[in-house]
Amino acid sequence: MRALWLERQQLRVRDDAPEPASAGESVVRVTCAGVCNTDLELVRGYYPFAGVPGHEFVGVVERSDDAAWVGRRVVGEINASCGTCRACAAGRRTHCERRTVLGIKSRDGAFAERLCLPTANLHAVPEGVGDEAAVFVEPLAAALEIQEQVRFETGQRVVVIGDGKLGQLVARSLRLTGVDLVAVGRHRSKLDLLEAAGVATLPAAELPGRRADVVIECTGNGDGLALALKAVRPRGSIVLKSTYRGDATLNMSAVVVDEIALIGSRCGPFAPALALLAGGRVDVRPLVHGRYSLADGVEAFEHAARPGILKVLLRP
Amino acid sequence: MRALWLERQQLRVRDDAPEPASAGESVVRVTCAGVCNTDLELVRGYYPFAGVPGHEFVGVVERSDDAAWVGRRVVGEINASCGTCRACAAGRRTHCERRTVLGIKSRDGAFAERLCLPTANLHAVPEGVGDEAAVFVEPLAAALEIQEQVRFETGQRVVVIGDGKLGQLVARSLRLTGVDLVAVGRHRSKLDLLEAAGVATLPAAELPGRRADVVIECTGNGDGLALALKAVRPRGSIVLKSTYRGDATLNMSAVVVDEIALIGSRCGPFAPALALLAGGRVDVRPLVHGRYSLADGVEAFEHAARPGILKVLLRP
Repeated sequence: MRALWLERQQLRVRDDAPEPASAGESVVRVTCAGVCNTDLELVRGYYPFAGVPGHEFVGVVERSDDAAWVGRRVVGEINASCGTCRACAAGRRTHCERRTVLGIKSRDGAFAERLCLPTANLHAVPEGVGDEAAVFVEPLAAALEIQEQVRFETGQRVVVIGDGKLGQLVARSLRLTGVDLVAVGRHRSKLDLLEAAGVATLPAAELPGRRADVVIECTGNGDGLALALKAVRPRGSIVLKSTYRGDATLNMSAVVVDEIALIGSRCGPFAPALALLAGGRVDVRPLVHGRYSLADGVEAFEHAARPGILKVLLRP
Repeated sequence: MRALWLERQQLRVRDDAPEPASAGESVVRVTCAGVCNTDLELVRGYYPFAGVPGHEFVGVVERSDDAAWVGRRVVGEINASCGTCRACAAGRRTHCERRTVLGIKSRDGAFAERLCLPTANLHAVPEGVGDEAAVFVEPLAAALEIQEQVRFETGQRVVVIGDGKLGQLVARSLRLTGVDLVAVGRHRSKLDLLEAAGVATLPAAELPGRRADVVIECTGNGDGLALALKAVRPRGSIVLKSTYRGDATLNMSAVVVDEIALIGSRCGPFAPALALLAGGRVDVRPLVHGRYSLADGVEAFEHAARPGILKVLLRP
């Protein structure tokens, strides 16, 4: 089958990519997939992975160990867990010690004609949610993970740092909670998108120091982390929503003296993400900046890596 | 009056140290004071402070704006807060934006014949708690702050990293909560003290990886932090109980991928610390490694700075 193939930091289109294994799982024909920063970092070699990248997708079930799923339009949770290890037994299935992760770890991903996932990972997509919205379920779920970790209250001061793909979804979802929200970013066009979505924005230089109850750091770079530490109030929380390249340096004494909580945050719950999209409460359409066929996948990655570009979609 | 005096990283005994200002506060005649790592770091110049250091003390109220306190034996909370700033208004008085801190920030401290503190900071010491136990109330309160920040449950796996002064108090107080506790340290004699107090210990090399629900990092160095990150399970918590010298480097991607919470922790509640000492539930006597008169204060600091030494006490 046709797929994008990553090997030794080289990305190419293969028409002879291996079909995904499917014993006891479901095979999904991909209809749309999204390029995420993690995909770009896989190509840059920040994580070791060889095979088909891609983990944001929507598709139709072609074959399944449960016949009831065949023909249904689905999205899928990306962590395939063993169900028996300590983490699974404790209910932390996204932290399964033996997990494979779609397009990220030991499992071929979504930039392909077909992928396969455990049937338990699938979520049916409601009719009213089009493919170009459904493809955002995975990153929107990641944005909603924050709300599983931190209790937000009306009027709380919350700052989102970063106006990129993740920052956009984080801000759009947090806006609905009634918090006193402000987003900080470096790109006028992306800040305009946030303003249009009803999110107040500020230049970083105008962000008040030591005032925010919660800061969501979505940039994944040291500058964003330093700004988060500057903006948060004593006993406030910083949610780390983006992965960092290697080690980061942090003024740990400030964390101790001000009793800050730093909270790492990764994959989140699909059901509320689907519900927000189905209810039209989060509009992701303005975030699509490019559409490519799988055959032009390498060009799609180049587009996605350009400054200022939000979501680039691939269709097989 | 006689006091230890710190100026430009030089510590000396002064017999002409200024009497503490006392308008609207209480003057306490110090009967015993303890040397803390923070004091040693003030001398090393890690924090800017000039004047009388020392913040762990017990004494007798000599003068007070509230006559009822005169003659009482007291310990005192070290943060003098304004009562009106945002932090105070929100109930976070130890984070007061205009605070002075006894022997640490803009307020002369406890290595002196007399100190002064707001009367609201004072706590009467029950008769059964001797001076050499009462002088541990401040650091024991800091140890108990952890229990204000993290909910501990019976059987939870908790690791304390560091067998020094703070680690000893943290482990001794956590032992009472019913958690499955193990302490890790580098010094046989200090580990023996923990074992004698009923705390299980392990060499760092034998600590299981990715198993602890909560890790309390009490070393304040990068090695301790790295070990904490290695020991904690996904979605577990690391409490940072010690201050760090400047910046620390951290594998932030591990924090994000494993959804770890890092929680800074500083000053804690005095009342439960006094109650634990009064009830004989935490025995601090084995932690006293030296006793000096104020006149020999410089020597006391040298003793406290030696490897393997726990608490050194000063008596005016």
